[in-house]
Amino acid sequence: MDGKEEDVRVGANKFPERQPIGTSAQSDKDYKEPPPAPLFEPGELSSWSFWRAGIAEFIATFLFLYITVLTVMGVKRAPNMCASVGIQGIAWAFGGMIFALVYCTAGISGGHINPAVTFGLFLARKLSLTRAVFYMIMQCLGAICGAGVVKGFQPTPYQTLGGGANTVAPGYTKGSGLGAEIIGTFVLVYTVFSATDAKRSARDSHVPILAPLPIGFAVFLVHLATIPITGTGINPARSLGAAIIYNKDHSWDDHWIFWVGPFIGAALAALYHQIVIRAIPFKS
Amino acid sequence: MDGKEEDVRVGANKFPERQPIGTSAQSDKDYKEPPPAPLFEPGELSSWSFWRAGIAEFIATFLFLYITVLTVMGVKRAPNMCASVGIQGIAWAFGGMIFALVYCTAGISGGHINPAVTFGLFLARKLSLTRAVFYMIMQCLGAICGAGVVKGFQPTPYQTLGGGANTVAPGYTKGSGLGAEIIGTFVLVYTVFSATDAKRSARDSHVPILAPLPIGFAVFLVHLATIPITGTGINPARSLGAAIIYNKDHSWDDHWIFWVGPFIGAALAALYHQIVIRAIPFKS
Amino acid sequence: MDGKEEDVRVGANKFPERQPIGTSAQSDKDYKEPPPAPLFEPGELSSWSFWRAGIAEFIATFLFLYITVLTVMGVKRAPNMCASVGIQGIAWAFGGMIFALVYCTAGISGGHINPAVTFGLFLARKLSLTRAVFYMIMQCLGAICGAGVVKGFQPTPYQTLGGGANTVAPGYTKGSGLGAEIIGTFVLVYTVFSATDAKRSARDSHVPILAPLPIGFAVFLVHLATIPITGTGINPARSLGAAIIYNKDHSWDDHWIFWVGPFIGAALAALYHQIVIRAIPFKS
Amino acid sequence: MDGKEEDVRVGANKFPERQPIGTSAQSDKDYKEPPPAPLFEPGELSSWSFWRAGIAEFIATFLFLYITVLTVMGVKRAPNMCASVGIQGIAWAFGGMIFALVYCTAGISGGHINPAVTFGLFLARKLSLTRAVFYMIMQCLGAICGAGVVKGFQPTPYQTLGGGANTVAPGYTKGSGLGAEIIGTFVLVYTVFSATDAKRSARDSHVPILAPLPIGFAVFLVHLATIPITGTGINPARSLGAAIIYNKDHSWDDHWIFWVGPFIGAALAALYHQIVIRAIPFKS
Repeated sequence: MDGKEEDVRVGANKFPERQPIGTSAQSDKDYKEPPPAPLFEPGELSSWSFWRAGIAEFIATFLFLYITVLTVMGVKRAPNMCASVGIQGIAWAFGGMIFALVYCTAGISGGHINPAVTFGLFLARKLSLTRAVFYMIMQCLGAICGAGVVKGFQPTPYQTLGGGANTVAPGYTKGSGLGAEIIGTFVLVYTVFSATDAKRSARDSHVPILAPLPIGFAVFLVHLATIPITGTGINPARSLGAAIIYNKDHSWDDHWIFWVGPFIGAALAALYHQIVIRAIPFKS
Repeated sequence: MDGKEEDVRVGANKFPERQPIGTSAQSDKDYKEPPPAPLFEPGELSSWSFWRAGIAEFIATFLFLYITVLTVMGVKRAPNMCASVGIQGIAWAFGGMIFALVYCTAGISGGHINPAVTFGLFLARKLSLTRAVFYMIMQCLGAICGAGVVKGFQPTPYQTLGGGANTVAPGYTKGSGLGAEIIGTFVLVYTVFSATDAKRSARDSHVPILAPLPIGFAVFLVHLATIPITGTGINPARSLGAAIIYNKDHSWDDHWIFWVGPFIGAALAALYHQIVIRAIPFKS
Repeated sequence: MDGKEEDVRVGANKFPERQPIGTSAQSDKDYKEPPPAPLFEPGELSSWSFWRAGIAEFIATFLFLYITVLTVMGVKRAPNMCASVGIQGIAWAFGGMIFALVYCTAGISGGHINPAVTFGLFLARKLSLTRAVFYMIMQCLGAICGAGVVKGFQPTPYQTLGGGANTVAPGYTKGSGLGAEIIGTFVLVYTVFSATDAKRSARDSHVPILAPLPIGFAVFLVHLATIPITGTGINPARSLGAAIIYNKDHSWDDHWIFWVGPFIGAALAALYHQIVIRAIPFKS
Repeated sequence: MDGKEEDVRVGANKFPERQPIGTSAQSDKDYKEPPPAPLFEPGELSSWSFWRAGIAEFIATFLFLYITVLTVMGVKRAPNMCASVGIQGIAWAFGGMIFALVYCTAGISGGHINPAVTFGLFLARKLSLTRAVFYMIMQCLGAICGAGVVKGFQPTPYQTLGGGANTVAPGYTKGSGLGAEIIGTFVLVYTVFSATDAKRSARDSHVPILAPLPIGFAVFLVHLATIPITGTGINPARSLGAAIIYNKDHSWDDHWIFWVGPFIGAALAALYHQIVIRAIPFKS
């Protein structure tokens, strides 16, 4: 009961307990570390919830690319930026869709909608390898279809106006682009880990309830900052879908950045969360 | 208790149970499928909550059209877009009103404010046919009154500036307009189903609490993407209200799109939710 | 328990119970109508929580005017609208401050920050006459001080650029301005009643938790729609504060609109809530 | 139980109890004032949670500066404001990052990310002096690194375009700048105190759950209002980080304002909360 009241103080420090460095961080009675997911879980492939989760990831990534690339096209087609929703509107489209879709699919597939998120959670052993690969394939297929529908609406303007494909903007080195993708994805996957940490969920009443909102905001914020640099990937499926449908040479030149960057960022976020925040290696 | 903790993990997969494909998705002890609503419920017509719900839908759709069409007029009347709230402000007006009104009326009428939402929920047998028809009539009457008040403020500019009526923009085929309405309404009604799924509500603490927010965001996001294409309907009452008050030939030419599109989109979302997500046909 | 699950369905109708028209709407066991507040509660004046509530209303209205009028000045002083936060930024300032301040003061004073809200809640007998008058005086004093500090920063530009005072814009009749204030305040006070209905709070888990957010959004949305008409009052303290500090003839000409309009709108919202939504007159 | 229902009424007054002025404000049975944190807590330095909290503050302030300064650079580099996310986008970057980071780090370090917040909470004796100093050092180091990475992406434009450093804008006196920083920080720290008041948390269901959102909004709103005056500091670590990396004379001239202002504002907020809201000096 006393612990319950302690948990809701946001601005104050939560953990006055004296603990020797390098052991367990806390010992909450109401919390039990879930065991790591096995690499291969044979029964998974014969369960409906497995296939349903893949379909949900497909539909979510489809809707994500459809709405966001259509918004990008609307801004690019406008006679001037003021006659459109503007660059800020594009950032809202990406972040807002992730908010709504994580909200809708969290209970079905976990609400990844992003191979980098799947990769980070796989590194932390939150899901099996089978499931991770299946999710990534479905996400990429959904993204291709979503961008394809946008191109179908207006094929010529789509090709003229860049099709929402990610490239490193003139004036930035490839190194800066890669760095922007790494830190941007770190922001997103760090937020995902914070929102879904079963340990914190067991303690803090605001964590699970708001969860989809800060995740969506993380995507919004990274777009505010890095649209001028790379157009903001931080989601390899989104970059692949736009690149395949756009399919011009210069959209493929930098494409590796939008896989390597997000995967490194996701791995760093997983490391940070498991080692610093959860102190898992130091636990007996 | 263990299941309770499991439920709040957003980023990870929720359902490691092995289930044979095509049977029930899960079996949560704390969940009981509500029976489908009857087509005609005779007692309904003599209950105050039935009539009150219709009045609430009327008032909500009235306020929805009043605020949104007035915002559209403000943007159109401005000397330039930058001296107004802009296209993004219009999108916020539509999405924000749905958020606030769903919040206010959810406990009174269910917070539809949109014949397409009523249609989708009716297909899933969440309300009776009597109630569905009554809601749709009240929504259309409210929308007409809301747009009428805006016209009353400034009749001449209203007619000159388009009156917020939905039409397919030059450069897009009617097929693209219809497609945009179908997918846009799918996004909205899919979010409504996800937010109101009694099964998920029983499990996930964040689902019922945030519910009006992602529903409002879904409307906002679809407007960001499709204002340049159709002005964004995804709500036949909104389209009808603006069309009747504006009442020029070209606003009626495309009007069927704003009924057929949303109803197809809502039906697809209902199908997707009942068949894929809930797997209702496969249950014994 | 069954009722508990029923309550969280947003999109579906909540009240399938058959009830004869004109009696009580529902009979929730866990709900008890609070008795109307007395007109004069003698002990109130000697309680610290009474005076503290007034101070909190003063500080909140002070901060509300300070931030919002400063934002208005920043937009007006900019070389062009695009080099400022724009009209949409002004709408966010008003709505966002109400969100943050209602959140902060709800537990101290009820979070009115607006004489129209106090008036509406007084009509519904949610607070005593003594308290209502005290709140309104403190709100008006806070608003005057808030606008005064902004003028203190830059007296000359403040007077040149209008000082955030409310007037009916050219091209609109005084009747339209009054109508816009009435409906706008109705939207706000209707949201306040929906968010604070003790009956709904007892049932719907999302109502009390989100409460400050839709109230803030209501203010934001009304500003999106009616800034071009009246600059948006819907808060007599805000209008009075700006008018007194600006103090030019034409800001006083329309000033009655920003008291009469909001008070009529608040009264209509109180009527709508007590008669239609709560059906109080029909209860035995 | 009766008290439980009472708590969720936002719009109405919560405390009808008659209390003599100057004693305790209420006596909630379920609330226990936590004892003030000691100035020096010897065991703290040997606990992992202490060092982990510092690392979390470092990473959070690093990400805060990285995203926000990068957004500022993107707006400044754009050919015109409309081709960027605009001043409003900058305000969203600052406020949104604080929302996401407070959400992520609240359970680890308390989520300060700002020496002024740490100072205010230290005055209220919510954390030890050791911890307060440690947090401030880590925040400043994180801020310097975050701004440094942004400069690393494009060193020349960074120096040309101001590097996001805070200065008092032409047309405003240093007194106005100081005043803007004081009141702005008061808004932020007042919101933090309201959100984290253990007494209110024990009573109001919406307070702990939404907490990070109004804190982020407070930062957003102060930026809307005071970007034209000082660029908005209200966070000495943010101002120091940008000043050190930018390192031109005129960025150091006003630098004292961005330490003195926030610390005065935070102290006033702490005083207001402890004396007026909590009435701590008057309690027996």
